[in-house]
Amino acid sequence: MPKQFRCHLFWCGHERDDPTKPSCAKRGSMDIGMKLKQAMRDRGLREEVAVTKSGCLGQCSVGPAMIVYPEGVWYSVPTFEDAMEILDSHLEKGEIVERLVIRD
Amino acid sequence: MPKQFRCHLFWCGHERDDPTKPSCAKRGSMDIGMKLKQAMRDRGLREEVAVTKSGCLGQCSVGPAMIVYPEGVWYSVPTFEDAMEILDSHLEKGEIVERLVIRD
Repeated sequence: MPKQFRCHLFWCGHERDDPTKPSCAKRGSMDIGMKLKQAMRDRGLREEVAVTKSGCLGQCSVGPAMIVYPEGVWYSVPTFEDAMEILDSHLEKGEIVERLVIRD
Repeated sequence: MPKQFRCHLFWCGHERDDPTKPSCAKRGSMDIGMKLKQAMRDRGLREEVAVTKSGCLGQCSVGPAMIVYPEGVWYSVPTFEDAMEILDSHLEKGEIVERLVIRD
Protein backbone atom coordinates (compact mmCIF):
# COMPACT_ATOMS: atom_id res chain seq x y z
CA MET A 1 0.00 0.00 0.00
CA PRO A 2 1.29 3.53 -0.74
CA LYS A 3 2.13 5.98 1.99
CA GLN A 4 -0.28 6.36 4.89
CA PHE A 5 -0.14 10.06 5.66
CA ARG A 6 -0.55 11.28 9.20
CA CYS A 7 -2.80 13.98 7.74
CA HIS A 8 -4.22 14.40 4.25
CA LEU A 9 -5.64 17.84 3.56
CA PHE A 10 -7.89 18.44 0.56
CA TRP A 11 -8.56 22.03 -0.54
CA CYS A 12 -11.45 22.84 -2.84
CA GLY A 13 -10.43 24.39 -6.15
CA HIS A 14 -13.93 24.32 -7.62
CA GLU A 15 -15.36 27.26 -9.57
CA ARG A 16 -19.10 27.25 -10.19
CA ASP A 17 -20.30 28.11 -13.68
CA ASP A 18 -22.92 30.58 -12.46
CA PRO A 19 -21.01 33.87 -11.96
CA THR A 20 -23.57 35.09 -9.41
CA LYS A 21 -22.95 32.16 -7.06
CA PRO A 22 -20.04 31.89 -4.61
CA SER A 23 -17.33 29.27 -4.98
CA CYS A 24 -14.00 28.49 -3.36
CA ALA A 25 -12.00 29.30 -6.50
CA LYS A 26 -13.67 32.72 -6.85
CA ARG A 27 -12.61 33.41 -3.28
CA GLY A 28 -8.96 32.72 -3.95
CA SER A 29 -8.63 29.05 -3.04
CA MET A 30 -6.27 28.24 -5.94
CA ASP A 31 -3.64 30.66 -4.72
CA ILE A 32 -4.05 29.66 -1.07
CA GLY A 33 -4.01 25.92 -1.81
CA MET A 34 -0.97 25.97 -4.08
CA LYS A 35 1.02 28.13 -1.66
CA LEU A 36 0.04 25.84 1.22
CA LYS A 37 1.29 22.80 -0.70
CA GLN A 38 4.59 24.56 -1.38
CA ALA A 39 4.93 25.56 2.28
CA MET A 40 4.33 21.95 3.33
CA ARG A 41 7.09 20.82 0.94
CA ASP A 42 9.45 23.57 2.07
CA ARG A 43 9.15 22.26 5.62
CA GLY A 44 10.10 18.76 4.54
CA LEU A 45 6.74 17.27 5.48
CA ARG A 46 6.13 15.30 2.27
CA GLU A 47 6.60 11.96 3.98
CA GLU A 48 4.03 12.68 6.69
CA VAL A 49 1.46 15.02 5.22
CA ALA A 50 -0.35 15.40 1.88
CA VAL A 51 -1.99 18.51 0.48
CA THR A 52 -4.22 17.85 -2.54
CA LYS A 53 -6.60 19.97 -4.63
CA SER A 54 -10.13 18.63 -4.80
CA GLY A 55 -13.35 19.18 -6.67
CA CYS A 56 -16.39 20.71 -4.95
CA LEU A 57 -16.62 19.88 -1.25
CA GLY A 58 -20.15 21.28 -1.01
CA GLN A 59 -19.21 24.25 1.21
CA CYS A 60 -19.51 26.98 -1.43
CA SER A 61 -21.11 29.51 0.88
CA VAL A 62 -18.29 29.41 3.44
CA GLY A 63 -15.27 28.72 1.23
CA PRO A 64 -12.42 28.49 0.59
CA ALA A 65 -13.13 25.11 2.18
CA MET A 66 -10.67 22.42 3.25
CA ILE A 67 -11.05 19.06 4.93
CA VAL A 68 -8.37 17.17 6.85
CA TYR A 69 -8.44 13.37 7.11
CA PRO A 70 -8.41 10.98 8.87
CA GLU A 71 -10.06 13.27 11.44
CA GLY A 72 -12.63 14.65 8.97
CA VAL A 73 -12.27 18.23 10.21
CA TRP A 74 -13.80 20.88 7.95
CA TYR A 75 -12.19 24.32 7.70
CA SER A 76 -13.11 27.67 6.19
CA VAL A 77 -9.82 29.27 5.16
CA PRO A 78 -10.18 32.83 3.89
CA THR A 79 -6.48 33.74 3.70
CA PHE A 80 -3.07 32.15 3.20
CA GLU A 81 -2.19 33.14 6.77
CA ASP A 82 -5.14 31.06 7.98
CA ALA A 83 -3.91 28.13 5.89
CA MET A 84 -0.48 28.49 7.48
CA GLU A 85 -2.08 28.33 10.91
CA ILE A 86 -3.62 24.97 9.90
CA LEU A 87 -0.17 23.84 8.73
CA ASP A 88 1.49 24.98 11.97
CA SER A 89 -1.13 23.53 14.29
CA HIS A 90 -3.12 20.72 12.71
CA LEU A 91 -0.76 19.27 10.12
CA GLU A 92 2.42 19.66 12.19
CA LYS A 93 1.14 19.07 15.72
CA GLY A 94 -2.28 17.46 15.33
CA GLU A 95 -3.98 20.38 17.07
CA ILE A 96 -7.28 21.43 15.48
CA VAL A 97 -7.60 25.18 14.71
CA GLU A 98 -10.97 25.67 16.37
CA ARG A 99 -11.51 29.25 15.15
CA LEU A 100 -11.45 28.11 11.50
CA VAL A 101 -13.63 25.01 11.88
CA ILE A 102 -16.86 25.20 9.87
CA ARG A 103 -19.84 25.02 12.23
CA ASP A 104 -23.34 24.06 11.20
CA MET B 1 -19.47 21.23 11.42
CA PRO B 2 -20.72 19.97 8.04
CA LYS B 3 -21.57 16.37 7.42
CA GLN B 4 -19.22 13.70 8.72
CA PHE B 5 -19.34 11.06 6.00
CA ARG B 6 -18.98 7.41 6.88
CA CYS B 7 -16.69 7.17 3.85
CA HIS B 8 -15.20 9.89 1.65
CA LEU B 9 -13.74 8.59 -1.60
CA PHE B 10 -11.43 10.78 -3.68
CA TRP B 11 -10.70 9.77 -7.27
CA CYS B 12 -7.76 11.24 -9.15
CA GLY B 13 -8.70 13.19 -12.27
CA HIS B 14 -5.19 14.44 -12.93
CA GLU B 15 -3.68 14.48 -16.43
CA ARG B 16 0.05 14.98 -16.71
CA ASP B 17 1.33 17.44 -19.28
CA ASP B 18 3.95 15.05 -20.68
CA PRO B 19 2.05 12.88 -23.21
CA THR B 20 4.57 10.05 -22.81
CA LYS B 21 3.89 9.66 -19.08
CA PRO B 22 0.94 7.77 -17.59
CA SER B 23 -1.79 9.52 -15.62
CA CYS B 24 -5.14 8.62 -14.15
CA ALA B 25 -7.09 10.84 -16.55
CA LYS B 26 -5.38 9.28 -19.59
CA ARG B 27 -6.50 5.90 -18.27
CA GLY B 28 -10.14 6.86 -18.12
CA SER B 29 -10.53 8.08 -14.54
CA MET B 30 -12.83 10.99 -15.47
CA ASP B 31 -15.46 8.69 -16.90
CA ILE B 32 -15.14 6.14 -14.08
CA GLY B 33 -15.20 8.77 -11.34
CA MET B 34 -18.19 10.68 -12.65
CA LYS B 35 -20.21 7.50 -13.20
CA LEU B 36 -19.30 6.30 -9.69
CA LYS B 37 -20.55 9.57 -8.20
CA GLN B 38 -23.82 9.23 -10.10
CA ALA B 39 -24.23 5.60 -8.98
CA MET B 40 -23.66 6.66 -5.36
CA ARG B 41 -26.41 9.30 -5.74
CA ASP B 42 -28.76 6.89 -7.49
CA ARG B 43 -28.52 4.60 -4.47
CA GLY B 44 -29.49 7.40 -2.12
CA LEU B 45 -26.15 7.39 -0.30
CA ARG B 46 -25.49 11.15 -0.35
CA GLU B 47 -26.04 11.51 3.38
CA GLU B 48 -23.51 8.82 4.27
CA VAL B 49 -20.89 8.77 1.56
CA ALA B 50 -19.03 11.35 -0.53
CA VAL B 51 -17.32 10.86 -3.88
CA THR B 52 -15.05 13.74 -4.92
CA LYS B 53 -12.62 14.34 -7.77
CA SER B 54 -9.09 15.18 -6.68
CA GLY B 55 -5.84 16.41 -8.11
CA CYS B 56 -2.82 14.12 -8.40
CA LEU B 57 -2.65 11.45 -5.72
CA GLY B 58 0.88 10.44 -6.70
CA GLN B 59 -0.06 7.00 -8.03
CA CYS B 60 0.31 7.76 -11.75
CA SER B 61 1.90 4.42 -12.62
CA VAL B 62 -0.98 2.35 -11.20
CA GLY B 63 -3.95 4.62 -11.87
CA PRO B 64 -6.81 5.29 -12.06
CA ALA B 65 -6.16 5.77 -8.34
CA MET B 66 -8.66 6.36 -5.55
CA ILE B 67 -8.33 6.74 -1.79
CA VAL B 68 -11.06 6.16 0.78
CA TYR B 69 -11.03 7.99 4.13
CA PRO B 70 -11.11 7.77 7.09
CA GLU B 71 -9.49 4.36 6.56
CA GLY B 72 -6.87 5.69 4.13
CA VAL B 73 -7.22 2.72 1.77
CA TRP B 74 -5.62 3.17 -1.67
CA TYR B 75 -7.19 1.56 -4.72
CA SER B 76 -6.23 1.02 -8.34
CA VAL B 77 -9.48 1.05 -10.30
CA PRO B 78 -9.06 0.19 -13.97
CA THR B 79 -12.75 -0.10 -14.89
CA PHE B 80 -16.17 1.21 -13.89
CA GLU B 81 -17.10 -2.31 -12.82
CA ASP B 82 -14.19 -2.25 -10.37
CA ALA B 83 -15.41 1.10 -9.04
CA MET B 84 -18.87 -0.40 -8.55
CA GLU B 85 -17.33 -3.22 -6.53
CA ILE B 86 -15.80 -0.57 -4.23
CA LEU B 87 -19.24 1.05 -3.96
CA ASP B 88 -20.93 -2.28 -3.20
CA SER B 89 -18.37 -3.49 -0.69
CA HIS B 90 -16.39 -0.66 0.87
CA LEU B 91 -18.72 2.33 0.65
CA GLU B 92 -21.92 0.41 1.38
CA LYS B 93 -20.71 -2.27 3.79
CA GLY B 94 -17.30 -1.10 5.02
CA GLU B 95 -15.61 -4.16 3.50
CA ILE B 96 -12.26 -3.41 1.83
CA VAL B 97 -11.89 -4.77 -1.73
CA GLU B 98 -8.54 -6.46 -1.21
CA ARG B 99 -7.94 -7.38 -4.87
CA LEU B 100 -7.97 -3.69 -5.88
CA VAL B 101 -5.83 -2.35 -3.02
CA ILE B 102 -2.56 -0.79 -4.22
CA ARG B 103 0.38 -2.69 -2.76
CA ASP B 104 3.91 -1.36 -2.47
